[in-house]
Amino acid sequence: MSKQFKEKFNIVITVGDEKGIGPEIILKALSLKELHLKSKIIVVGSKKKLIAEYKLLKSIGTKRLKNPEELEIEDITNSNFSKEMDNSGNASFYYLQHAIEMVQSLPKATLVTGPICKKSWAESGHHYPGQTEFLAESCNAKDVGMLFTAKSPITGWRFNTLLATTHIPLKEVPKHLNKNLIFSKLDQLSNFAKKFKNNPHLKIAGLNPHAGENGLLGLEETAWMKETLEQWSDLNPNIKIEGPMSPDSCWISSAKAWQKEISEKNDGILAMYHDQGLIPVKVIASNYSVNTTLGLPFVRTSPDHGTGFDIAGMGIAQCQSMIEAIKTAREFSLEL
Amino acid sequence: MSKQFKEKFNIVITVGDEKGIGPEIILKALSLKELHLKSKIIVVGSKKKLIAEYKLLKSIGTKRLKNPEELEIEDITNSNFSKEMDNSGNASFYYLQHAIEMVQSLPKATLVTGPICKKSWAESGHHYPGQTEFLAESCNAKDVGMLFTAKSPITGWRFNTLLATTHIPLKEVPKHLNKNLIFSKLDQLSNFAKKFKNNPHLKIAGLNPHAGENGLLGLEETAWMKETLEQWSDLNPNIKIEGPMSPDSCWISSAKAWQKEISEKNDGILAMYHDQGLIPVKVIASNYSVNTTLGLPFVRTSPDHGTGFDIAGMGIAQCQSMIEAIKTAREFSLEL
Repeated sequence: MSKQFKEKFNIVITVGDEKGIGPEIILKALSLKELHLKSKIIVVGSKKKLIAEYKLLKSIGTKRLKNPEELEIEDITNSNFSKEMDNSGNASFYYLQHAIEMVQSLPKATLVTGPICKKSWAESGHHYPGQTEFLAESCNAKDVGMLFTAKSPITGWRFNTLLATTHIPLKEVPKHLNKNLIFSKLDQLSNFAKKFKNNPHLKIAGLNPHAGENGLLGLEETAWMKETLEQWSDLNPNIKIEGPMSPDSCWISSAKAWQKEISEKNDGILAMYHDQGLIPVKVIASNYSVNTTLGLPFVRTSPDHGTGFDIAGMGIAQCQSMIEAIKTAREFSLEL
Repeated sequence: MSKQFKEKFNIVITVGDEKGIGPEIILKALSLKELHLKSKIIVVGSKKKLIAEYKLLKSIGTKRLKNPEELEIEDITNSNFSKEMDNSGNASFYYLQHAIEMVQSLPKATLVTGPICKKSWAESGHHYPGQTEFLAESCNAKDVGMLFTAKSPITGWRFNTLLATTHIPLKEVPKHLNKNLIFSKLDQLSNFAKKFKNNPHLKIAGLNPHAGENGLLGLEETAWMKETLEQWSDLNPNIKIEGPMSPDSCWISSAKAWQKEISEKNDGILAMYHDQGLIPVKVIASNYSVNTTLGLPFVRTSPDHGTGFDIAGMGIAQCQSMIEAIKTAREFSLEL
């Protein structure tokens, strides 16, 4: 790590799985000058592979690419564990591991992670449901939160959705939900929302269709969820909460707030499970959504999509979510 | 039932639960002249209560209301079971029961149902998870399907989502899914889609986050879903199917097709459970979405929202979904 990195505000970006679209979206995103204006960007990956990707994309006519020769690259190819790096699953794991160390040792540093392949991680012996869980373990962070955030390019409103449960099978979801978890997630979401507004308004989705329709379509809402929300609300009188709401109407106002200035604007929604939150996030915010981790000692963001193995190397990957991830990392580091 | 009803194309509309917004959205929707042009509309409910609702709404300045005196009303107040009708749960059940009989006895007839309250039904001794299930029982229809359909006012594209499971608690969903159910639902969805296009393109959502990510986040997709889709595809070579898709990206192209002419247009999506399908339907199609039942001997549609008890009588209920339900009932009766 060169000395100069320690003297500026730093954004450390991992390339993720090099067989996917990570390198492409990074080279595309970093061609935007504004991303370099207020910060020092350091890419963690293989310089050799980034140059190869750049040449490949250039050869097929891809435009607006940053030349890796002009980037600060923390080149892991030259490190001690270079022999293990031919496997892109292994490599992407070590890039992240190294990037976490960098971010923790640098002042004013933030982390942006490119997409990895969970299966390739597992095949290389790295058994984590996702990067978030490895980050939590590495930082001894017990209560991390997976928050999806997007700033509407139309209204400027920031759309936030926190997941109560994350990368678990659907059938496991009801077993994982309980009062302690909801309290912890509401604390996380409200602490985040309070950085932007003194009296935030939060929505909480129910678990069952129509939020259980008074116990007819599921018992969790009447058995403990309503009471849990009331108890949390009593302890947090300055925060307006609504819920448990019928999941199918919980995000309707967010869709309007994304499009129109004059509409109700909530400050965050707590979703009970991965797809309950991610389906509306991706439909409403499209490429503008960013995955960020709450509860770490530093800001971490990531594009909200996967490795895109099927379109890698074709020059057609959208880099908007990576651009937003970098912008959001900088914004949150300054504001939070 | 007067004789003249038998001579024209008939749309039978139930008012639903009279304590909710059903009567209001019907009076608002039926003020649109175009809905009366090609069909005879018959409202099933209490004439007295419809007139009272009309007067109430008029008194608070609500505009564009159809005067119930100008409507054909099948007035259940005067029927034999009038004593039981003070309870709106009971009343809404009998309106539906009577309307089903009307639709089955009339030629070229179709049913549009106003929203009911499942809890009020249950409290009145009518134990059905919803109107769809009562309709199925009444018509001896074994395999009914709950399809949400909406025609984009921007592109004219029809957005269809069929639910594999409907009004059951979330924790029951994985137990209900199996090969036979998926085969039956794909048959239903493809038969519907083929009325509009010879070679439809269908998408099928997975059950787990990232469609299980190769078994890491749930086993159903690798254990039987993929194989089931392959087998069904072999039997239906003229239909293009995609799936099991990651649920959080399954509806992204639909959001684009709703907004823009130039975009991939699918002909239908099969969702594994209520909120997986309804969350994107309501976010994308907003008030334009209509609930329709496949597998009945007649066309049945319904607005996609609930009774709105909290806003009833205030004159602020949106009637767009009811308008769409009536238009769709007519369109499907002509086309299907």
